[in-house]
Amino acid sequence: MTIDHICFAVKNLEEGISYWEQVFGYRQMTEIVENTLQKVKVVFLEKSDSLLIKLIEPKEDNLSLVNFVNRGGGFHHVCFKCREINEGVAELKKKGLISLVSPQPGEAFNNHEIAFLLGKYGLNIELIDTSEKAALR
Amino acid sequence: MTIDHICFAVKNLEEGISYWEQVFGYRQMTEIVENTLQKVKVVFLEKSDSLLIKLIEPKEDNLSLVNFVNRGGGFHHVCFKCREINEGVAELKKKGLISLVSPQPGEAFNNHEIAFLLGKYGLNIELIDTSEKAALR
Repeated sequence: MTIDHICFAVKNLEEGISYWEQVFGYRQMTEIVENTLQKVKVVFLEKSDSLLIKLIEPKEDNLSLVNFVNRGGGFHHVCFKCREINEGVAELKKKGLISLVSPQPGEAFNNHEIAFLLGKYGLNIELIDTSEKAALR
Repeated sequence: MTIDHICFAVKNLEEGISYWEQVFGYRQMTEIVENTLQKVKVVFLEKSDSLLIKLIEPKEDNLSLVNFVNRGGGFHHVCFKCREINEGVAELKKKGLISLVSPQPGEAFNNHEIAFLLGKYGLNIELIDTSEKAALR
């Protein structure tokens, strides 16, 4: 399990993209895609030799995330890659993490399955199944 | 400017190290070093092909950070490498970031200079000067 990306929640994706481009020299790597089940719009930003960054903007019925971005938004989660999502989730649950979102397809990941768990220190962990090789990114 | 590491604040470094080792398979990379000026104890954790992680534990007179870890702690900042710290700080200030901590030596970075700035979305940014090549890590 290695870190794939970290994610920040923003009120408006276009503004977030522009901020990361202008301030940190990142480039928009993917189109903006809506993850229907997770009720977020998603974009990936890249920079050579630097960590992959994901920005998310909540759909209006994603109340907890709307509340978060209305208070300024910011760091949301760390995403780890795993080879098989159910095994990854089981391993982290065995280690004490609490399942928040069971494995489900993520459109922004070309429908690779994703899951969310809550760890110690309020650490929100996303797992992404990298077992299929087709990918949007 | 590329991302060097991300940092989490914890109440107790030994517990934090143990958590990252057991849950995510990271390894302690450096000794625990005290950054006197920043009033934190610092350790770096590494994992092959994964992002470098830093954990910090506040000294007891670091009141804002003590308050943060007493509420659970968590994500603290993103650290970018830059070639010359004053230029890096000037560039980010020109782009609207607010200087929090002016360049000062960081013991955990073998006295390479570090600085902190506050960006949009509550984003706490550390800059580390990589111009000298000697490094603890």
